[in-house]
Amino acid sequence: MNTRQSTEVIFTCNAAEALRGVISRLSPTLCLLVYPDNAGQQLLHTLDAPDICRQAVHLAHPEGESNKTIAPVTRMWQQMLTASADRQSLIINIGGGITTDLGGFAAACYMRSIRYVNVPTTLLGAVDAACGGKTGVNIGGVKNIAGAFHIPAATIISPQFLTTLPAAQILSGWAEMLKHALLISPEAISRYLAIAPLTLDSAEWLPLIQESVDYKRSVADADPHEKGLRRILNLGHTAGHAIEALLNDRGKPTTHGHAVATGTVTALVLSHLHAGFDSKLLHRFARTIRELYPPIHITCADYPALLALMHHDKKNRGSGSINFVLLSAPGSPIESTPIDDESVKTALDITRDLLGI
Amino acid sequence: MNTRQSTEVIFTCNAAEALRGVISRLSPTLCLLVYPDNAGQQLLHTLDAPDICRQAVHLAHPEGESNKTIAPVTRMWQQMLTASADRQSLIINIGGGITTDLGGFAAACYMRSIRYVNVPTTLLGAVDAACGGKTGVNIGGVKNIAGAFHIPAATIISPQFLTTLPAAQILSGWAEMLKHALLISPEAISRYLAIAPLTLDSAEWLPLIQESVDYKRSVADADPHEKGLRRILNLGHTAGHAIEALLNDRGKPTTHGHAVATGTVTALVLSHLHAGFDSKLLHRFARTIRELYPPIHITCADYPALLALMHHDKKNRGSGSINFVLLSAPGSPIESTPIDDESVKTALDITRDLLGI
Repeated sequence: MNTRQSTEVIFTCNAAEALRGVISRLSPTLCLLVYPDNAGQQLLHTLDAPDICRQAVHLAHPEGESNKTIAPVTRMWQQMLTASADRQSLIINIGGGITTDLGGFAAACYMRSIRYVNVPTTLLGAVDAACGGKTGVNIGGVKNIAGAFHIPAATIISPQFLTTLPAAQILSGWAEMLKHALLISPEAISRYLAIAPLTLDSAEWLPLIQESVDYKRSVADADPHEKGLRRILNLGHTAGHAIEALLNDRGKPTTHGHAVATGTVTALVLSHLHAGFDSKLLHRFARTIRELYPPIHITCADYPALLALMHHDKKNRGSGSINFVLLSAPGSPIESTPIDDESVKTALDITRDLLGI
Repeated sequence: MNTRQSTEVIFTCNAAEALRGVISRLSPTLCLLVYPDNAGQQLLHTLDAPDICRQAVHLAHPEGESNKTIAPVTRMWQQMLTASADRQSLIINIGGGITTDLGGFAAACYMRSIRYVNVPTTLLGAVDAACGGKTGVNIGGVKNIAGAFHIPAATIISPQFLTTLPAAQILSGWAEMLKHALLISPEAISRYLAIAPLTLDSAEWLPLIQESVDYKRSVADADPHEKGLRRILNLGHTAGHAIEALLNDRGKPTTHGHAVATGTVTALVLSHLHAGFDSKLLHRFARTIRELYPPIHITCADYPALLALMHHDKKNRGSGSINFVLLSAPGSPIESTPIDDESVKTALDITRDLLGI
């Protein structure tokens, strides 16, 4: 494993130029481009680096969360072996969170670890998956059960890829940025709640993404192996992951951020009930989510399944209750609070009420 | 990944007692026993720890180098998930090098790393695979292409398992011990060449295994991620791995140590030709190998295949020549010397001559 604790993050509007600089500095024996198979050509077109594309070995992977398994990673290892990739080779991931998770895991374990670079092309990828060094695949449909901590040699973040994203993808990333703003300070969340994310241009995105990434990195750097502090980044994800998995199991998947936005409302409800989080801000936050995101169709009949999924989460294994990250106020997270099932159900009731579900 | 650089090694004649102590100290939420499916029951019988066996989840894996693939590791991850293994669970590997490599890799990546304990049951496992923190699986028949560095929480070494091993398995481990002795000092190799390994009893084995393991650990500790010094442990393995792979491809597999013993003779021939290694000691070493091990059937018709395999080794990727670890004298290794194909062929000729192949 890479022993550096932090990746170099390059914020730019020209990803190709930045990537050439990184490759020149790392001087790999071979570059391997990892990208999603269908969207890949469009992403490479937007990247506009024919020189890099021509010289690299291309490793396309099948798209979708259901394909985030060990199978495409094994295929990458086979292709890398065939291409004579060695310990000085470099994986370049161009895509969203699934791509950086798959390619990062392939890099973490190929010959017991080679270097990799992330070029996130989704807002969610940029602010969530690309910098933290968490890589992994799902096992039996459960998220990230097999994986490794492996810090990318560099992460290149450019808003040039955002212009081609559908609104739902922008909103998916925005949910993580709202979560970061809640963790940063009262001033930050107040400012973010006043922004209309679907109207921003590239120049407006860059400082916001940088603020969000810088915050996430400061937390990840302080706790690279998720022993404690880093858990605060799971704010909204306990219920969020369960909602995401439930909708996925039903064959009606939604975006990660859509589920997390809903899960964050649940976390704030619990924060209000158990940690004194301000009621007015909870209502303001919920109103914003209700305006930006379509309602998620869950009823009280879904609670047993949602609770089972939350108990199944790798952070809750072996304990009877479900651990939530709560906020006593914006910027004041509480790492882990065990909540009993009845209280979770109450919070889900209030969440549905607030979001008009 | 575990950030400790070194495993605790417990030398004992009572593995069960030592294992109980380790489990009590680590207090895992769940123990998972990994062992080879056919030999497993005999190993558990020799371990004689019915209390541990009863409480643990059993993860048997198919035996043989051809099954050292990602498939049984993926199966372990699925079984662990089903058994609700969490981040505080503990994998206990009971078996040879394949078991510790598979179970160690499963531990390295389950929920991005959980703890594991190795109880090597072969001489080779004890002196070679169990302590170093190298884990991994083969891809496309090429050894250890996917893997991770992950140091075991503890390694329990007991000669109680050696008494049931066939002679070929003892000799397989002995080749690694001879290699270590060559790396330690002139005194050590001279002493080891005077030992008849098939006549030793448990009390005689323990200090020899300890000397070998202590040496290997001192090297691995100084270079846990194999950036430099640790490469000296590959003495004899450049030709050895190629011979092992060739015989395996032919459907006539031999033990790892048998191939390494032959490869070590080749390395000493090259050491004599390129680094001034003493000719008398080369001949004495080769004579010992010839007396202990059956001849390996390779002819000059096999050289192209052997050279191709050596070029394919992950340590030689991207370079035109083949890198060998050489010795100017016992205890004086040279990390990496590039050797051209013609010189390797000459060394293989002399090896066959010395070993009567």
